[in-house]
Amino acid sequence: MTPTSEAISDSPVSEVDVPGPVVIIGAGLVGASVGCALTEAGVEVHLEDRNPSHATVAAGVGAGRLDPVDADMVGLVVAAVPPGALAEVIAAALTRFPHATVTDVGSVKGDVLDQLWRTGADRRRYVGSHPMAGSQHSGPVTARADLFLDRIWVVTPHRESAPDRVEAVAALVRLCRAREIRMDVDDHDTAVARVSHLPHLVSVLMAGHLTTVPEQQLRLAGQGLRDVTRIAGSDPGLWRDIVAGNAGALVPELKAVHSELGELIDAVESNPQHGADPFLARAVDGTRRIPGKHGQAPRAYATVVVEMPDQPGVLAKLFADAGAAGANVEDLAIEHDQVRQVGYLSIAVVAEAARDLAAAMRRSGWTATVLSSGTA
Amino acid sequence: MTPTSEAISDSPVSEVDVPGPVVIIGAGLVGASVGCALTEAGVEVHLEDRNPSHATVAAGVGAGRLDPVDADMVGLVVAAVPPGALAEVIAAALTRFPHATVTDVGSVKGDVLDQLWRTGADRRRYVGSHPMAGSQHSGPVTARADLFLDRIWVVTPHRESAPDRVEAVAALVRLCRAREIRMDVDDHDTAVARVSHLPHLVSVLMAGHLTTVPEQQLRLAGQGLRDVTRIAGSDPGLWRDIVAGNAGALVPELKAVHSELGELIDAVESNPQHGADPFLARAVDGTRRIPGKHGQAPRAYATVVVEMPDQPGVLAKLFADAGAAGANVEDLAIEHDQVRQVGYLSIAVVAEAARDLAAAMRRSGWTATVLSSGTA
Repeated sequence: MTPTSEAISDSPVSEVDVPGPVVIIGAGLVGASVGCALTEAGVEVHLEDRNPSHATVAAGVGAGRLDPVDADMVGLVVAAVPPGALAEVIAAALTRFPHATVTDVGSVKGDVLDQLWRTGADRRRYVGSHPMAGSQHSGPVTARADLFLDRIWVVTPHRESAPDRVEAVAALVRLCRAREIRMDVDDHDTAVARVSHLPHLVSVLMAGHLTTVPEQQLRLAGQGLRDVTRIAGSDPGLWRDIVAGNAGALVPELKAVHSELGELIDAVESNPQHGADPFLARAVDGTRRIPGKHGQAPRAYATVVVEMPDQPGVLAKLFADAGAAGANVEDLAIEHDQVRQVGYLSIAVVAEAARDLAAAMRRSGWTATVLSSGTA
Repeated sequence: MTPTSEAISDSPVSEVDVPGPVVIIGAGLVGASVGCALTEAGVEVHLEDRNPSHATVAAGVGAGRLDPVDADMVGLVVAAVPPGALAEVIAAALTRFPHATVTDVGSVKGDVLDQLWRTGADRRRYVGSHPMAGSQHSGPVTARADLFLDRIWVVTPHRESAPDRVEAVAALVRLCRAREIRMDVDDHDTAVARVSHLPHLVSVLMAGHLTTVPEQQLRLAGQGLRDVTRIAGSDPGLWRDIVAGNAGALVPELKAVHSELGELIDAVESNPQHGADPFLARAVDGTRRIPGKHGQAPRAYATVVVEMPDQPGVLAKLFADAGAAGANVEDLAIEHDQVRQVGYLSIAVVAEAARDLAAAMRRSGWTATVLSSGTA
């Protein structure tokens, strides 16, 4: 009831700082960005990477230093290496840095923990974590201190994690200005199985099925097929590690979809006219449940489509006019053709702003129309 | 061997013109765009739509006239109505316009034909067709004469189609400057089942499965999930018609994917470390088989990522600089955040041009890097 205890309960976060110096092992985009955030906050960061040029580039963008550190002094180690190497790197770090809290940024948690359990490592000092940022860009060149700003960052204590070690990792999340979600290891792995690994394998199945389709028939492919299969082309090596690491959570989801697909087939076979109806309706509900890009509540967007002659200078004028109209562009897409001398630019804005933007663009001489709305 | 016969064999296409006047039934984007192309070529076009305002808007963009036509004089009818209404509209047109060739632009062909077969209509004058354009934009506002330029347009004669009627429809395709592929009705329906309807239902299944995922877990969703499920949210009414019309071709594809999913599950269960490997590799092969956006051979693209402060004017300057660098932008994506004051713009260009563009952007003061490559 004292002012002090109230202050603590209002913002307990101010009580724990990131324990430095920090060692970052793996200077890719995520590791280097963590380094930038720490360095900017005045924490001493030492960078390590199997590929020395990655560490050098990361140091060049302000992620930390390359000189050796006194292992006994290290307060925190962040392992930011590919999933297949994580357990080994974490176990080695727990030994090399005898007083440090050790965390990682891997996308699967239970499997790493199982492997750690089989080592003699001091597991009380290990607390897993998983920032939801940076997967698209793999190198340190585009690293930046605010990569994690307002992103979800899951912290996954295990049953032996010491409470002060959990708070040290939570402090790292806060320093990176991300939004912490604390989750049980299994709950985390189920969540990523459902929202990331399952959709990836669904895309992989669809793309793999295309190997059975004759070339002549593939000429009829449109944008829908490209959307569904886009992620299927990405880094089979990384995905092998992820599937291997999260097979336990992933297989039940695959089985559920297998069973749902069986039900869809039965429904369409027995009633071609309306068998698919409930599946189509349920899908619309499902897409609406996906939160906004950075974890905000879904927000209604509308698309303004502007005709544009296909010349480089036109985009500049178009954006100057859209800027003058005060548009805050949420997303963009060009429907572009190398043969036709015209295309469409789709500009997504918040739904309330779409009509005004289209009107302003028309006043500036463009052909513009409000097309459709959705959530993003 | 005369010059005339040589001329004919070199371009037999010039021998047949589109037989006017033309009636277009259904003045949405596709119908109105066909009307614009015909009108621009000097062919008399009459527009009909159950929704009179659609016909009025279409007439306003130059798609044709709204006054009645002498039914005996009509040379060609284009039915551009939703799939569920097609057979009825085609049968009625064959009766109303006793000398006209009748075609349609629907995405399923066999089912319509089966329904026509059960009517007393003069089927020799009907030849189905399917232009691969315009599905995204449904209204006539953005109609244009060159919507079909360089796009694939499938013509699907049936066994009773009179050869001169087939040539009349082929003439329409040429006049719209599309690229004709002539396909058997069943082959067409199998092709669209594989490259369009199957991916749609795969997306629908994945999106529907999300209704089982707790909200807290959905907060971890990323771009991959959004890509895979994007089309699942679109127009359940249209898709009900499509599934109903093409169930015969679609069910075997669904069964094949069902079986492939079963194999994937078995493989991952029996070998979590490497069971998915062949599926991941096959998926990469599959994505590479998808032709370019407008039916060209797949071409290698690379992405140049440019950092940008999140302010409207910045895009204009960015595009002015990209234009000055001579970039022919193939595709764009913004990674945008309302909270962060910075984002990334990904600019896709042909692979050979990426390095030069990035260098030019850096000379103009931007932070730019060549990220990855793929096919589009």
